Amino acid sequence: MGENGFAPATDDYAERVRESFSKQGMMSHLGAEITAVRPGFCEIALPFRPEITQQHDFFHGGALAAIIDTAGGYAAFSLFEPEDSILTVEFKVNCLAPAQGEKLLARGEVVKSGRTLTVTKGEIVAVESGRETVCALMQQTLMRIVGRDDVKG
Amino acid sequence: MGENGFAPATDDYAERVRESFSKQGMMSHLGAEITAVRPGFCEIALPFRPEITQQHDFFHGGALAAIIDTAGGYAAFSLFEPEDSILTVEFKVNCLAPAQGEKLLARGEVVKSGRTLTVTKGEIVAVESGRETVCALMQQTLMRIVGRDDVKG
Amino acid sequence: MGENGFAPATDDYAERVRESFSKQGMMSHLGAEITAVRPGFCEIALPFRPEITQQHDFFHGGALAAIIDTAGGYAAFSLFEPEDSILTVEFKVNCLAPAQGEKLLARGEVVKSGRTLTVTKGEIVAVESGRETVCALMQQTLMRIVGRDDVKG
Amino acid sequence: MGENGFAPATDDYAERVRESFSKQGMMSHLGAEITAVRPGFCEIALPFRPEITQQHDFFHGGALAAIIDTAGGYAAFSLFEPEDSILTVEFKVNCLAPAQGEKLLARGEVVKSGRTLTVTKGEIVAVESGRETVCALMQQTLMRIVGRDDVKG
Repeated sequence: MGENGFAPATDDYAERVRESFSKQGMMSHLGAEITAVRPGFCEIALPFRPEITQQHDFFHGGALAAIIDTAGGYAAFSLFEPEDSILTVEFKVNCLAPAQGEKLLARGEVVKSGRTLTVTKGEIVAVESGRETVCALMQQTLMRIVGRDDVKG
Repeated sequence: MGENGFAPATDDYAERVRESFSKQGMMSHLGAEITAVRPGFCEIALPFRPEITQQHDFFHGGALAAIIDTAGGYAAFSLFEPEDSILTVEFKVNCLAPAQGEKLLARGEVVKSGRTLTVTKGEIVAVESGRETVCALMQQTLMRIVGRDDVKG
Repeated sequence: MGENGFAPATDDYAERVRESFSKQGMMSHLGAEITAVRPGFCEIALPFRPEITQQHDFFHGGALAAIIDTAGGYAAFSLFEPEDSILTVEFKVNCLAPAQGEKLLARGEVVKSGRTLTVTKGEIVAVESGRETVCALMQQTLMRIVGRDDVKG
Repeated sequence: MGENGFAPATDDYAERVRESFSKQGMMSHLGAEITAVRPGFCEIALPFRPEITQQHDFFHGGALAAIIDTAGGYAAFSLFEPEDSILTVEFKVNCLAPAQGEKLLARGEVVKSGRTLTVTKGEIVAVESGRETVCALMQQTLMRIVGRDDVKG
């Protein structure tokens, strides 16, 4: 996936993304990590653990939703001004294949970055023995909250 | 929410739901519990913990997705035959209000139970000082896999 | 469906809804009519015609989408100030049953009316020999544009 | 958009797509035409007409939904066996920009073609003075009905 030519508002966009991410109790509780940030793009990795499975020992749909919602959100946030905060308006996930393997990679990408709303798309690949299979597709809307610093609170 | 007059296929539907739920590593890792099962309906409670927050210390969107996907899934599963298994095809979540409070309650309800596909709707309420606020709305499609026991595997 | 206790901003909300609706070339081209407007609620009827079918002579999915998007939009618009305009941000439709019969009724209802965003839900029933069957379910986000009159343009 | 390496089941897949399309009363009533069919891909064009507008004289959201639902559906159908029929399970549309210009182009593309379910993604571009702007994004699930010819009925 490309980044569609988006330019960040500030040079320290990646630091701001990583700092905000580090404040999410949920991401460290699941064991997720940011593996790439570029303007309008974010990738999150989630290694397999029994703590994040559903009843057939695949990755739980909620774990998929958590990392792709977050990847899409930080893809959008990477283009924001420092005084802007972000909220998820809605997102939709289609499951394409059982989410199994040694890890998941969730990739979120901005399609349209508007003054108030940002639209992203995303996909999750399951990595099994080094081979990637797309297991989920995502479409998402986010809202910019001007004047509330996302990181400093 | 009502249950729209659905009848379970077997008397032990609630036990089967609870047994399958207990096999989800993700649900206990988040601290979620089933609080109600009726034919075509399931409610899941998730108490607040710092481990399931986003960067503003609200409940993480992925935690919301995890419990409402699961509540909708078990609402559908409650109407299945014992030899049927279930998969999420897709779901969509709209966030209506910040998810804050002492706990969340996710309520999933079957709208249409078909031979292959089931459609559910759901909502999540945030309970703060005993007062319920609807904070998310969900619409979901699930698929029945005939001949693979969901619980015994 | 109820209207969840919403109050209109002005007494002439129904006239404003009907006037805006009458400017939609698409609605008259399909043969759709508003059959009810209440604060936070709108119902649109679409009689069967060969011009709005898909390849099996059922109502076309696009016809369903057109009337439920519009019903949800006017449910939201019924609560707006006269100087506000409305845009659809996104909507999702689940098809539950073949859309066949003498007419469709699309019912949109506001769930959350915010300053910027409104969330609605909706359903379409197919009326066949006077009997109603729910054939589609909808979830939608709309945006308020302040300061641009929707009707006067 | 590419076609992701999908192979058609038969040589006459494009004829079957066009024949089924020609039976949709809705498509000719809107003035829509198929402009491209490839294995796993379909493009539909919709020239501007006052009959398909909303209240601000942009293309109506229902017109967008009609052509992108159809483009996604025929992208899926292009990979089916002759005895297979197709139904839309659900679709979601995000509106990115006002749909204005001399015509719309809706492009649907298969992401996953399964035995029962197919998942597609799509986008609509508005063409204004020859320049393309993406105005909508779509994600869709379709169901294969084996043993009911889509064209012969």
